[in-house]
Amino acid sequence: MKIVALAGGVGGAKLVDGLAQALPASHLTAIVNTGDDFEHLGLSISPDLDTVCYTLAGIANPETGWGRRNDSFHTLQALADAGQATWFRLGDKDLATHILRTARLKDGARLSQVTRELCQAWQVLPRVLPMSDDAVCTKVLTREHGRLDFQEYFVRLRCEPQVTGFEFVGLEQALPAPGVLEALRESDAVVICPSNPWVSIDPILAVPGLRSALSGKPVVAVSPLIGGKTVKGPAAKIFSELGFQPSSRSVAEHYAPLLSAFVLDRLDQEAGPPAPIPLLWTDILMKNRSDRLRLAEDVLNLIRSL
Amino acid sequence: MKIVALAGGVGGAKLVDGLAQALPASHLTAIVNTGDDFEHLGLSISPDLDTVCYTLAGIANPETGWGRRNDSFHTLQALADAGQATWFRLGDKDLATHILRTARLKDGARLSQVTRELCQAWQVLPRVLPMSDDAVCTKVLTREHGRLDFQEYFVRLRCEPQVTGFEFVGLEQALPAPGVLEALRESDAVVICPSNPWVSIDPILAVPGLRSALSGKPVVAVSPLIGGKTVKGPAAKIFSELGFQPSSRSVAEHYAPLLSAFVLDRLDQEAGPPAPIPLLWTDILMKNRSDRLRLAEDVLNLIRSL
Repeated sequence: MKIVALAGGVGGAKLVDGLAQALPASHLTAIVNTGDDFEHLGLSISPDLDTVCYTLAGIANPETGWGRRNDSFHTLQALADAGQATWFRLGDKDLATHILRTARLKDGARLSQVTRELCQAWQVLPRVLPMSDDAVCTKVLTREHGRLDFQEYFVRLRCEPQVTGFEFVGLEQALPAPGVLEALRESDAVVICPSNPWVSIDPILAVPGLRSALSGKPVVAVSPLIGGKTVKGPAAKIFSELGFQPSSRSVAEHYAPLLSAFVLDRLDQEAGPPAPIPLLWTDILMKNRSDRLRLAEDVLNLIRSL
Repeated sequence: MKIVALAGGVGGAKLVDGLAQALPASHLTAIVNTGDDFEHLGLSISPDLDTVCYTLAGIANPETGWGRRNDSFHTLQALADAGQATWFRLGDKDLATHILRTARLKDGARLSQVTRELCQAWQVLPRVLPMSDDAVCTKVLTREHGRLDFQEYFVRLRCEPQVTGFEFVGLEQALPAPGVLEALRESDAVVICPSNPWVSIDPILAVPGLRSALSGKPVVAVSPLIGGKTVKGPAAKIFSELGFQPSSRSVAEHYAPLLSAFVLDRLDQEAGPPAPIPLLWTDILMKNRSDRLRLAEDVLNLIRSL
C-alpha cells in the first residue's frame, strides 16, 4: 500500500516517522509544508522540512521535537555578542543544514533536490518532498501587529497575537515540486498528519493542482487536537480566534470535502461524530517512537478497511 | 603620529595589535589584504580581516593566531557528517562572523561597512579597512596543480605545491576601499607589517592608486623572516621557489623602491645591510602581547628618528 503523508512540523513529523516504521521506505512519500520557510541572517531555513527529515533520521531533539538532538548554541551566542537578535534558536548542528541548503540554492539547485541530497546524507529512506520548489510565504493577519511573517508570529511573538486570517504569498503561482503529483497519482491513500490545519496543511492543499490530485483517493486525517487542545502550537487558539470551536469536530469539518475517514482521540468521544464518514477513536498522543508506530498502524488499518 | 599599517594575517595582526597598544586608537589605521577572501559553503570569508579584527578585539585563538579563542566545531562536524569537505576549519563562533558578513553583503552593504560594523560590535577601536571593497582573488601558480585559489593552496594543500608565481584576479579594476587613500594621505608614516610579501602585502600595494599614495611618506617594513625562516606560513619557501635567497635581505630588496627604513631580527646580523637605508636589528618574534608592544615601539622610535 503506497501512502502519501501531508505534514507540517513536529506532530506531523511524528506520524510520518510512525508510517516510516510501518511501511517499506519505497511506499511512503511525505509532502511537507514550506509556507513557513524564511530567510534569516541570509540563510534559507525550511523549518518543517528539517523537522520531518531530522525526525526520520533519528537526529531530532526529543525534548522540543524541532532542531537537532544534543545541539549547542555557540554560533548563536557569538551572533548575540555581535548584537544580533536571537529569537530564532539556531543550534550549531542545525546551522550546518541551513548553510548547506543556502549554498546549494545559491548554486542554482532546487529545494526538492537539496532536500533529496540532505536525506541521502542523513540516510532518510522514505521520500521527503517540499510541497513546492517555489517560494511561498505564509503571512499571519493579526489585530495588534497587522500582517506578520509566520516565524515572527510563531517564534518571536510566541503565537500571542490574535489571528484574523492568513495569506499564502506566492502560492497561486507555485508549482508542485517535482514528484509531488506523481506520488499522489501512484498512492493508494493520503494521510493528513496531525499538523496545524490552517498553517501547515492548508498551504499544501492550496498548491495549484494538488487538491485535484486527491480526488478519488482515500484521504484520512488525524486530528491535531485532543480534548479541544493542541499538543503543541497554536491550532486550538487559532480555531477560537477565527470563531470556531477548538475541537476535533472542527478539524474534521475543516477538511470535510476531502475526507474519507477521520482519526481522533478517545478523549473526544463526547464530541460526537463530526461527519458521516468512518471515524476511528484511538490514542493520538505520540510520546515515543512506539506510539508513532501504533498510531500509524491504526491509520493504515483504517485505510485498509475503507 | 598617525600610522597606517599594511597587514595580512597572523604576523601582521600581531604587530597591528602592538601598534594599537602604543598609539591612540584614532592614530592607527590598518589596511588589510583581501586577496585571500573567498566563498566557502556559500559564506563570504575574509581570513586576514578576521585575524586582524579578532586579534585587536582580544578574541583570537592564541594557539593558532587565526580563528576565535575557545571555539568549538559542532557545525563543522555536522557538515562533515553530511558529506562536506572540512579542510577549512570553521569554528562555531567564527561562523557567526561569516554568516553576518555574508548576510550584510547580500543586503548590499560593502565590505568596508561590514568590517566597521563588526569592529563596533567587538569594540575594536583602531580603524580596520579592507584594501578594497571590490573582489580580488589571489591565484597561486604551481607546477603540480596549475592555478590554485589561495585557500586551496594555503589550507587544503598546506602550501606543499611548488610556486611559480601569483595572479591577483580583479586587482587592476579594484578601487581602494573608502578611507584607504584618505588614511594614507593623513598618515605620518606607513608600517609594512611582518606578513607574507608575496601574497599579503603585494596585493595591497598593487591596488590602483595605493602605491602612489605612499610616495613621499616614510615607509618602514618589518621582516617576516628570522634566520631565513618564517614564523608561520610559506613566505621563506616561496622566496626559494621563485629563485631568491629566503632572507631578510631578500625581503628588503623586494620592498626596496618604497622603503625608508627596515626592521629585521638580531639573528639576521650576518646577512649584512640589505640596502642603503636605516636598519634596525631587534627581536621581531612576538610570543605575547608585550612583545607586540615592544616591537611596535621599536618601529615607532625608528620612524621618529627618520
